[in-house]
Parts: sequence; C-alpha cells; structure tokens
Amino acid sequence: MGIENKNIGVVGSGSFGTAMVKMLLENAATVNWCVRDETLKNHIKQEKRNPNYLSSVAFDVERLNLTTSIDQLVHQSDIIIFVVPSIYLLETLKPLTISLENKIIITAIKGLIPQSCEIIGDYFMKEYGVAEENIGVIAGPCHAEEIALERLSYITLAFKNGENLNRCRRYLKSDFVRVTPSDDIYGTEHSAVLKNVYAISAGIANGLNYGDNFIAVLLSNAIREMEEYLKIISPIDRNINNSVYLGDLLVTGYSYFSRNRMFGNMIGKGYTVKSALMEMNMVPEGYYATEGIFKISEENGLNLPILETVHKILYQEKNPRKQFKKLTKKID
Amino acid sequence: MGIENKNIGVVGSGSFGTAMVKMLLENAATVNWCVRDETLKNHIKQEKRNPNYLSSVAFDVERLNLTTSIDQLVHQSDIIIFVVPSIYLLETLKPLTISLENKIIITAIKGLIPQSCEIIGDYFMKEYGVAEENIGVIAGPCHAEEIALERLSYITLAFKNGENLNRCRRYLKSDFVRVTPSDDIYGTEHSAVLKNVYAISAGIANGLNYGDNFIAVLLSNAIREMEEYLKIISPIDRNINNSVYLGDLLVTGYSYFSRNRMFGNMIGKGYTVKSALMEMNMVPEGYYATEGIFKISEENGLNLPILETVHKILYQEKNPRKQFKKLTKKID
Repeated sequence: MGIENKNIGVVGSGSFGTAMVKMLLENAATVNWCVRDETLKNHIKQEKRNPNYLSSVAFDVERLNLTTSIDQLVHQSDIIIFVVPSIYLLETLKPLTISLENKIIITAIKGLIPQSCEIIGDYFMKEYGVAEENIGVIAGPCHAEEIALERLSYITLAFKNGENLNRCRRYLKSDFVRVTPSDDIYGTEHSAVLKNVYAISAGIANGLNYGDNFIAVLLSNAIREMEEYLKIISPIDRNINNSVYLGDLLVTGYSYFSRNRMFGNMIGKGYTVKSALMEMNMVPEGYYATEGIFKISEENGLNLPILETVHKILYQEKNPRKQFKKLTKKID
Repeated sequence: MGIENKNIGVVGSGSFGTAMVKMLLENAATVNWCVRDETLKNHIKQEKRNPNYLSSVAFDVERLNLTTSIDQLVHQSDIIIFVVPSIYLLETLKPLTISLENKIIITAIKGLIPQSCEIIGDYFMKEYGVAEENIGVIAGPCHAEEIALERLSYITLAFKNGENLNRCRRYLKSDFVRVTPSDDIYGTEHSAVLKNVYAISAGIANGLNYGDNFIAVLLSNAIREMEEYLKIISPIDRNINNSVYLGDLLVTGYSYFSRNRMFGNMIGKGYTVKSALMEMNMVPEGYYATEGIFKISEENGLNLPILETVHKILYQEKNPRKQFKKLTKKID
C-alpha cells in the first residue's frame, strides 16, 4: 500500500466502478467510494462484496470509505473518478454543492451527456469549471470481469498535463494492470463511446447469423469509420491501431463479456429495442450513444455506413435484416 | 453459369482448395481440379464430396474436370489457382513439364517457399518465368468452413494488371462472395502469411489463460507489427485496416475455425510443437511461416516483439509462459 494520501474517490457502483475500486486498492491506503444507496453501502460493509456486480471480489472494507453522499466524497477527495452510466450522471451530480474547480476529474464513463451529446470531460469543463489540464480519461480494452479475475489488462490514462498523469498513474498500475500514458483526452473519450456503437453492430451481425468472415470485415470497416470520425472531432496525430482505440473496439466487439455486443445480438435475434433493454441488468452505453454520435456525425457531414445502419435499427425502427443487407454493399 | 470458357483450374484439395472450387462453380461452366491422388479423385466422382474437407458440400461432378496430373490441369487451364500448403508446393510442381509462361497464376497459398523464404508469387516469377502482371493473389477474411455454409464473405483479389483482375474477378463473385479489387500483390501476399503467425500468438495467449483484454492488446500490437513489416517489404501507400490486412488478422486470430489459432492454443496448453503438429489434421501455415518471416524481419533490422516471441517458442524451444511474460512488457 505505497500511496498513503487518502484522497482518491470513485463515484459509481456498477461493474466497472467496482473493478476500479479493486484496482485502486492495490495502491491506495484508502479509497473513498460513493455508492448508489444505503442498502448497498451497508451490504458492502457487512458482506465485503458488491452483491450486484463482480461479487467474487472480496474487499478489505477497513480501507474503504463508503458513502452515499456525493458532497462527502468530493469533500474528501482530490482525485475523483466517475464511473456511472452516462444516463445517470446528471442525477448523480444534482445533490453536489461543493466546487469541483480544484479537483482532478477522471472519467471512465463511456457515453455522452444525453441531451447535449457532449463527452463527459467537456461537460465537467463547461458546467463545473474544471480546467482542461485537470481532466483525465481512463479507457482501453478492460472488461471489469477480467479485472475481478486479476487477468492482465492494459488501460490507457489520458491527461493533457503530464504531472497529473504521473500522479494518477501510480494509483492504477499493479501486477494485473498496465497503464499506458496518453495526452489524447478527446480522442480517447470519443473512441470509448464510439466503440460501443460498433460493438452493437457486431452483436447484431452475430444475431442475424452472419459469420466470423463477415464480422471481421465489419470491424475492419468500423475502425476505419472511427478513424474518420476522430480525425474530424480532434485532428491530432494518433495511431488508430493503439490498444486504446483498436484494442478496445476488439474486446468490445468480440468478447462475450461485452454488454453492448450482447444487446446487439438480442436485436439481431429479433428482440425489440425496448424488450432487449428490459432483459439486460446492465446499461448498454452504445444504445444511448448511438443517437448522439449519429447527430455529431451528421453535423460534421460524415458518411459512416455502419453507424448509420445501427442508428436506423435502434432509433428509426428499421428492420435489422434489411438494413444489414444494404450495409453489406457499402463496406469492403 | 455465365462464364462458358472452360479454362480455370484449381490445384489443391485441402479445405480452402475445396472451398475455391465451390466458389468457382457459382460462375464457371466447368472447373478443372487437380487433386492429391486417384483414390480421392474417384471418391469425389462417385460420392460428389471431398471426404476429407468440407464434406457437407455436394458438387455437381458433371461440371468438374478432375485429374491427378498437374500437366493435364495446366494444359487445360489458362488461369490456375494454387491452393496447396506451401510445404507441398514444390512436390506438387515437380512433375510439371508444361510452361507456365503464358498462364495467369493466382496464389491462395498463405505461406512461404520453405527453403528460400520467398512468397509464392515471387517464386512463380523467378522459377517459372510468369510475368508480374499475370500473378494474382487471393486473400482476406475467408474461412473455408463459412464458404461451405454460404455465409457472406469478402475476399480480396490483387493483380498489378487491371484487365487480368477483371477477367478473374467475375469467376469469384457470387451471392455469398464479394470480391474487393487491389493492386497490392506483395502486401497482400505477405500479409496473408504474417497474419497466421500472429494468430498463433493469440492461440498461445489463450492457451496460457490470458483473457480477452490481453488478446485485444496483443492483436492491436500485431497489426502495428504487420504494418511495420509491410512498409519495409513493399513500401506503397496502403490502409492497413482494410479487410484484407486487418480483417484477415481478426478472423484468423479470433475464430475457432482457425487452425493456426488452434495450433497456438495447444502450444499454450503445454503440447510440444511436434505433438501439436501430429494432433492436427491440417497444416498450420503459420508454424512454417514463422521461421521465414523471422529471418526476413531480422535481415531487415526490424524489431517485432510478438514475432520474435513466437519464433522463440516454436523454434528455440523456449518456455511459452516465460516468453509471454517477457512479451507483456514489450507491448502496449
């Protein structure tokens, strides 16, 4: 437990939030953790586990500073990692009365603010006055389930400011987590959102009984669409085949752990969007992101056939089989 | 049966050779097919199936011109597609007495000439006087098993000469096969060889119990290694994320149909190379390619950690677990 300063906090008690706390406990003496409600807080205190997600992980609760108050968490933390589903972020932040201006805010949320279609980093800068240099992004191929199993994973931590990067990096790296540094905060965040949309497309293809040959073609088109999108949104020099972009697309597009792929698979198999959402215990970020990403893509005059196809299926009630048949003529 | 000229032939009766004949019969009135021996020839004639590979595919044998003589096949064919494992190519060509100089030679072999480490196209040019413009390459994400099932697949056909490309392309495209044109004959052939080496690495990782997070990182490093290699071998402008490069890597690295991945998996699980080779009914091209590719890479001063790791495990009897532990520090 090398790092003694008790100032890091996690907001969110879903699967990746739970995994994040596990990662931090490898390094931090104490972790502040803001969870959904008192019942959950008490359960974790007593049973040393989150009953809803990654329940195989036993926590050393002496080192957890559990709370249900966002104010308390922010008050106690200099570095705050947000890991709630994007659709619950505004609700989570509502009770907050303390300023975030001097805090380091890291987002591990892979979605957009619903109404404004902003990425989370932008939202914190605009609405909470957080400086750009204090915004961090965690992304990369990292299923929470494999963190629970302590299977070697590589995450990317992006900050514009190198000092903040190094300060936060040491909390994350461990025997089973490698941390790749990056300064591409915009590309990293947008890419983390985009890849969920494309994972849904892979799931739909699978549900429609397309095979491995086709899905490989689909994902190799997907990464090209992602590159085109990122070039417009944040035109810096980046290798789209770095793990944080391509690797994350692959793990989300291919892994059976992926909730977005699973959601797409249900759609491909004939579930309606509503019934697929109801069947799932987790939020498929890609579903919510599709609307915003499509809007951003249209506003920028981009022509991204896979994105467009997913949007038609999820938001325009178009038939998945027919839309994919059309899509097969637009990719190569 | 649009194409009436009876001049296309396939050499090879393995799984992809059998799939190739099925593809061609969608378009050609007759296909010349040179198979391994008389027993197989007679079996296919009588039973209408290749008993060894893709035996679910029933052939219209009236439209097959079966032979075991390479001379006869070459004599009857203007366009010849080679689909034998690279280690059997020289043996297959030995009885040939007819010139190939005015033939169109297409390779669908995903390996190197064992002794000289040449790609197949180069070998036909050098040893048989075939003109560069008459060399074609078929590659892309295309498991034979999915061709048998008529699942939509995209292959790439590369020729320097546009006329030859168009002439050959019409034989291949069908309801379940899309053909993407390319002029990158060298990149396409090298990439088809390379991806098998990287699929072995994914298999080894899986056998060693690394998870989806790690394998995504591994393959995103693999495509970067492939790009670096191709830049040196054939420095033309190409998008490495096209289906023929990245897509083929993905299907080979992720699919359970992949023999190279399966071979790697056995190595990761503790089989010796010899016993893994003996257990398999198919030739894992990547095993043979690793030696040549590594040599080419060394000669060109490249530093490709995954390739080097696979070479150490397969050819230097190094311990897979230890080598992969070292590799985890060299990728990101």
